[in-house]
Amino acid sequence: MRAVTVKQPGGAEQLQVVDYEIPTPKAGELLIKVKAAAINRTDILNRQSPLGYMNNPILGIEVSGIVEEAGAGAKIAIGTPVMGLVNGGGYAEYVVMSEENAMVIPENLSFEEAAAIPEVFLTAYQTLFWHGRLEKGEKVLIHAGGSGVGTAAIQLAKEMASAKVLTTAGSDEKLAFCQELGADICINYKKQNFEEEVLQSTDQQGVELILDFVGASYWERNLKSVKVDGRWVLIGILGGKVVENVNLMDLLLKRVQITGTLLTPRSDAYKAKLTAEFASKALTLFENEKIRPVVDHVYSLTDIQKAHERMESNQNIGKIIIKI
Amino acid sequence: MRAVTVKQPGGAEQLQVVDYEIPTPKAGELLIKVKAAAINRTDILNRQSPLGYMNNPILGIEVSGIVEEAGAGAKIAIGTPVMGLVNGGGYAEYVVMSEENAMVIPENLSFEEAAAIPEVFLTAYQTLFWHGRLEKGEKVLIHAGGSGVGTAAIQLAKEMASAKVLTTAGSDEKLAFCQELGADICINYKKQNFEEEVLQSTDQQGVELILDFVGASYWERNLKSVKVDGRWVLIGILGGKVVENVNLMDLLLKRVQITGTLLTPRSDAYKAKLTAEFASKALTLFENEKIRPVVDHVYSLTDIQKAHERMESNQNIGKIIIKI
Repeated sequence: MRAVTVKQPGGAEQLQVVDYEIPTPKAGELLIKVKAAAINRTDILNRQSPLGYMNNPILGIEVSGIVEEAGAGAKIAIGTPVMGLVNGGGYAEYVVMSEENAMVIPENLSFEEAAAIPEVFLTAYQTLFWHGRLEKGEKVLIHAGGSGVGTAAIQLAKEMASAKVLTTAGSDEKLAFCQELGADICINYKKQNFEEEVLQSTDQQGVELILDFVGASYWERNLKSVKVDGRWVLIGILGGKVVENVNLMDLLLKRVQITGTLLTPRSDAYKAKLTAEFASKALTLFENEKIRPVVDHVYSLTDIQKAHERMESNQNIGKIIIKI
Repeated sequence: MRAVTVKQPGGAEQLQVVDYEIPTPKAGELLIKVKAAAINRTDILNRQSPLGYMNNPILGIEVSGIVEEAGAGAKIAIGTPVMGLVNGGGYAEYVVMSEENAMVIPENLSFEEAAAIPEVFLTAYQTLFWHGRLEKGEKVLIHAGGSGVGTAAIQLAKEMASAKVLTTAGSDEKLAFCQELGADICINYKKQNFEEEVLQSTDQQGVELILDFVGASYWERNLKSVKVDGRWVLIGILGGKVVENVNLMDLLLKRVQITGTLLTPRSDAYKAKLTAEFASKALTLFENEKIRPVVDHVYSLTDIQKAHERMESNQNIGKIIIKI
């Protein structure tokens, strides 16, 4: 089968399409004939790292496709269209997936749309509801509103919690799109001081929850934006990782809760539980078109280098997909 | 009545016993004839601050005593012995207390012992179970094991969660006492690197929960001591408030949750809810002598300056009490 591996740790030019052996599903696993895979920032980190990911030389952590073969104990019918997380190996014509990670694709979605769902919607669900404990009618600040997780989080926060959504992005085009997805307050961080806009839109109280992909460069301003007793979930460090001079008294007085989280390195059991809960609550929302996957651009497998370059230059709104 | 106020913001020498008017209970409040009050670090901060506390010129946030008079709507019988939090005014012969903050004193406890309960046991309960979500059999690192909250937390963690308790203190005498209270691993932070001891005692995994009164000076070592997916509750900054260079990547990779919290500034409704839950679960443990208040030293009201000095020099094991 054709698959994408990395020549040497480095830039997008190191990605290569090679011939590879089709994997064999073990007990509880499915062999998926891949129709589409999505690009994630973790793929870029794995491309750059000499460690790779989970000892799998093939990149890619989420796909959509058709069940081709089922390992011992798997109950799903051959031929079922599914989407889900995989432990590497997604940029390929075939991949194995734990049956517990497989979600049946709603009929109204294409394979390209389905591949745009698992990682970002599961991450958004996990951060908003498991870590962030978002309650009905609360206010949430979602940074990087135009990103994959951002576009998913805006929709889930509106649809599942009737939250007031405040979001930041770096272009008016991205913000117009966020507004279309339901965001209430759209802030251009290049033109506005987001913390001032947040305070002004919340009677100077701040928001109950922040989803923070940015990290160090937003630290002080997030602290100003979060309400007393608020929650702040850290899920990325696009704006740097080292904060100089953190004043713990601020955390005490605001009684703020900061949670760092990542989805990809978590256990199969965790992902299975998250997938099951998300599927039971959210799949009908896709069927009823209350929420939707956001596809930025679809590339062919041979254009994998272009796909990575597009993500690295932050041009995308939503997900970058590889059609296979 | 006699009461303790502050001449000018400053040291213990600024404390003075003065004549003051007996307060009047409003609806839902009780007038308590105070038998004993306890010293808290927040009293020292209020003594030093030009702001005082809650506009109450009389220091003191917890007492034991006898219900002398009940405001409109209060249901408790006159003459009932109670203990509980008050919004300032505790260092006095009479104080008003919200009825919702009043816990009936178990019969086997003296007033001096009862005054040693509310603040530290409620804080320990709140941090261990509400913020720390301590589960049966988990491992918890409790810093300042000889402090008021430390001695309460050790007992509650053992008795209510069968936790493995690791604790730190600065003298062998304090550690021997912690062991007597049930602590499993007792670490002298002046002689040992606590993070090494913690890792060695937990198969190099770290603890699920840290109760941190120390703050900045322990930051890196707490980060090493906490397990992946662990919780870290910050409730004091005895070791400084500013951490230089916080690496957010560490928080992401460890998926740690840091919660800052304080009890005293919280709303009456919050304190009432906490008091009710604690009373329903813990009062029988005092009655059955499964747990006990820890009284370090009892002073008379006129020795209030000595009482503050003792706390400021960290000599105490458990609570410093004023008998009135």
